[in-house]
Amino acid sequence: MKSATVETKAAVFVQPRKLAALAEAIGATLEGDGEIEIRGAAPLDCAGAHDIAFLSDAKYRVHLETTQAAAVILSPREAASWTTTKARLLAVNPYAAYAKAANLLYPEPPVPAGVHPTATVAASAQVAPDAAIGPHASIGEYAVVGARSVIGAGCAVGEQTIIGDDVRLAPRVVIYPRCVIGDRCVLHSGCVIGADGFGFANENGRWIKIPQIGGVVLHSDVEIGANTTIDRGALGDTVVEEGAKIDNLVQIGHNCVVGAHAAIAGCAGISGSVKIGKYCRIGGAAMIGGHLSIVDGAVVAAATPIFSSIESPGMYSGVYPVQPHRQWQKNAVQLRQLDTLYKRVRALEKMLEAETPATNEHEED
Amino acid sequence: MKSATVETKAAVFVQPRKLAALAEAIGATLEGDGEIEIRGAAPLDCAGAHDIAFLSDAKYRVHLETTQAAAVILSPREAASWTTTKARLLAVNPYAAYAKAANLLYPEPPVPAGVHPTATVAASAQVAPDAAIGPHASIGEYAVVGARSVIGAGCAVGEQTIIGDDVRLAPRVVIYPRCVIGDRCVLHSGCVIGADGFGFANENGRWIKIPQIGGVVLHSDVEIGANTTIDRGALGDTVVEEGAKIDNLVQIGHNCVVGAHAAIAGCAGISGSVKIGKYCRIGGAAMIGGHLSIVDGAVVAAATPIFSSIESPGMYSGVYPVQPHRQWQKNAVQLRQLDTLYKRVRALEKMLEAETPATNEHEED
Amino acid sequence: MKSATVETKAAVFVQPRKLAALAEAIGATLEGDGEIEIRGAAPLDCAGAHDIAFLSDAKYRVHLETTQAAAVILSPREAASWTTTKARLLAVNPYAAYAKAANLLYPEPPVPAGVHPTATVAASAQVAPDAAIGPHASIGEYAVVGARSVIGAGCAVGEQTIIGDDVRLAPRVVIYPRCVIGDRCVLHSGCVIGADGFGFANENGRWIKIPQIGGVVLHSDVEIGANTTIDRGALGDTVVEEGAKIDNLVQIGHNCVVGAHAAIAGCAGISGSVKIGKYCRIGGAAMIGGHLSIVDGAVVAAATPIFSSIESPGMYSGVYPVQPHRQWQKNAVQLRQLDTLYKRVRALEKMLEAETPATNEHEED
Repeated sequence: MKSATVETKAAVFVQPRKLAALAEAIGATLEGDGEIEIRGAAPLDCAGAHDIAFLSDAKYRVHLETTQAAAVILSPREAASWTTTKARLLAVNPYAAYAKAANLLYPEPPVPAGVHPTATVAASAQVAPDAAIGPHASIGEYAVVGARSVIGAGCAVGEQTIIGDDVRLAPRVVIYPRCVIGDRCVLHSGCVIGADGFGFANENGRWIKIPQIGGVVLHSDVEIGANTTIDRGALGDTVVEEGAKIDNLVQIGHNCVVGAHAAIAGCAGISGSVKIGKYCRIGGAAMIGGHLSIVDGAVVAAATPIFSSIESPGMYSGVYPVQPHRQWQKNAVQLRQLDTLYKRVRALEKMLEAETPATNEHEED
Repeated sequence: MKSATVETKAAVFVQPRKLAALAEAIGATLEGDGEIEIRGAAPLDCAGAHDIAFLSDAKYRVHLETTQAAAVILSPREAASWTTTKARLLAVNPYAAYAKAANLLYPEPPVPAGVHPTATVAASAQVAPDAAIGPHASIGEYAVVGARSVIGAGCAVGEQTIIGDDVRLAPRVVIYPRCVIGDRCVLHSGCVIGADGFGFANENGRWIKIPQIGGVVLHSDVEIGANTTIDRGALGDTVVEEGAKIDNLVQIGHNCVVGAHAAIAGCAGISGSVKIGKYCRIGGAAMIGGHLSIVDGAVVAAATPIFSSIESPGMYSGVYPVQPHRQWQKNAVQLRQLDTLYKRVRALEKMLEAETPATNEHEED
Repeated sequence: MKSATVETKAAVFVQPRKLAALAEAIGATLEGDGEIEIRGAAPLDCAGAHDIAFLSDAKYRVHLETTQAAAVILSPREAASWTTTKARLLAVNPYAAYAKAANLLYPEPPVPAGVHPTATVAASAQVAPDAAIGPHASIGEYAVVGARSVIGAGCAVGEQTIIGDDVRLAPRVVIYPRCVIGDRCVLHSGCVIGADGFGFANENGRWIKIPQIGGVVLHSDVEIGANTTIDRGALGDTVVEEGAKIDNLVQIGHNCVVGAHAAIAGCAGISGSVKIGKYCRIGGAAMIGGHLSIVDGAVVAAATPIFSSIESPGMYSGVYPVQPHRQWQKNAVQLRQLDTLYKRVRALEKMLEAETPATNEHEED
């Protein structure tokens, strides 16, 4: 093949819509010609004559004047200060409105129902007649696959695992036995649900495995990223509550509870028995130590390690600030003896106090 | 399906035992009625009338008085201060005793021996007659699978790889060619053993791949977590010694040696040619730089990056302490100029020395 | 099996060469007997009578006197100070010369062309006649597999995905639909190319998925490590330029561009819409925040989190220095109030300024 990297882009599955229909479906206010056919979505600065674009961040406002988009979704406030004849969809939350529009324009491509001839389905498994089981997938004994769910190529669904309705498993997802996947969950390739938690007792230096007999329960509308791992509970279950979204390469330890509508970004590591509150946001590569509890709505910054529970909402950070390497080296040397520096300052203060008592006015920390 | 998330929990495979038999099998001292049939294990506060529970941490002592458990495993010392008619198993290490009991109650479910009709086994491979090869698994030329070993659905075992006896590969494990997996190893789904190490020579800015011709050798009783990767050696082998336990999403670089009975928690990254001593414990998301050596028994705290060898046992930490974001911002600003602050303190000290030589008594760091 | 862990090492596929032929092929200057047959490569201190070894780091010079190697690749400068009758290959960049030699000695073993009978190839897919599709692999509709490319066991190649010539996919690679893999790319097991980026709009606390309709484009000669994930773009593509090398367990977010010949080490996390320049080196477990830009040739130290763009080349670090745990604890306490310490020093300075104005000579930072 001469030039794989410069091939024309493959066609995405699109469902075109009239602008007026789109406006109605997403609950936005239409200004302008509702008869335009929208055939796709694109950023303001790349959109073509049949694309819809959106403005949700003022820093992209500069593109409004020159955009070729058929129509723009934006807030009433932004619209008020933009004089144009272009069609517009007004929405208080333009990004959410765009999300709804894009989901209508780009629905998941339909997958033909049925069990692929190369798939292996145990005799006692129950697969809904309108579910789709892909090539080389295996469904264990007493497993259940709900209505319209799609099991991708090469997935392995363990014994007694229950998969709800309208679930999508991308290729090569593994779900161990006795787990539950709620309705409308989306699991990306390579994620592993229900592997054993990391539980061992130590006896004279050697490790004795603790059987991990709990399960994993994903409530409805959960999305799990590629190659993410969620361990089964030691005795009880590991639970991800409804609507929580977990990115790629995240580790969730045994017996964790991830609260409803929480979001956990890529490469985060959650140790065992952690309770993450509802609506929390955990940044990428953050790390949360075992048995901690994070209050509802707290935000943990990316790359921040957490070693004690968080009891008040707000944003928490703990990241060494980056610097050119030489400056970092100098500061790191001093950081290693910061306690000594503190004592030296304390000694200086005492000396000066002794000398000049009247000027001692700093606050004690 | 109406309510995938609230389905009754699926049945776990249990092997019930009389309490007296259990006590004898795990080497604990029975107090009370040995005829009770134990049908499961559960935490003190959830256990039912046929469950065994354990007390290994004094903070759960509060549950002793109200537990519904059939029997409790605890230390002789805790037992001495607990007046009860409930059956008890006394053990010096209650958690290890519990682990042994749980392994007896919850043995791995038996897997029927034989090669699944959808599996692909190379003509020259040797598979023990009592081994089990799951659906869609592939076993390469000259590979060996030992007695009673279970190869899960969709595993890929490369050419000339040797798998010992009583090994368990969960679904979708990949073992590249020419690796060795010792007896009783447990490998979880998605782990990749023997991919090429990250070795490239740079010539005028471009990378030339160094063929990775070593292998990976896991000694006996090693457990590898889901989606963990252990690279093959560049020339020699990457080795994990007996009894070491490695959690999920851990990266072990080429030519590492992980010492016997070491434990490495999730998301840790071990660069190439690192030697981790026996009995070491490496915390989750810790990171160890290339060519370092960690002495036997050292403990690296979670999220700690290590850039020089550790030569004395003990625990090592290097984590920025978390704070509410605004406080972090203020401190981070000062941290970037800590060396300057140090110099300012030094200058103050000199000034005061000059003024008041007698009071100069801080120790030089 | 008695001793899986002590089995003799399996045979590697080797292509022996005369030393003179090897010298010519890699562009090195031969000194000594060119007729020696080289049958392998090994480190200086382990090499046998038919192995070639190399010296690229002066610290291994000590092994020169005692090496049993048939021949040694080294720089003219090192050669000048080593009096020996042993055969030598002189090269300005001995490590690159070794890489070339090792690639000749250890070529990828040939894989028989053709589609394995257990593989599933869609009717509309185009597979080159000399490509090899392994057992249980699946190739989607309208996908293309180029000349001499090898698709490993159990790989899943999505609809309309284009794979160039001479590509190697190890077992269990997943490529989602509509991606492009350039010529000579190497993808290791478990890597996932083209899963959905982590894009959600928030509406009243709930997440609405943003369809990820872009793709992933890997240019030629890219290598992707085991279990690494590269997300598809939200609207445009995620791109990895030619010759870039990405290690294991790396996360590349949607719409990133990784510049040509960059190297990203294991466990690094790259958030969405990041632009990594050409020739950059990103250390293991480094983390780069969203929408940042890293200038060509910059080096980010291992475990360093980056939260603002890097505009000048050089090395950047941001790692808390490790210490024995108790010392760390003391310093961490002070770090939490570093801003206060700074103010106390400032107060001391002011007091002394007031007292002794003439000695105020520190520079303001």
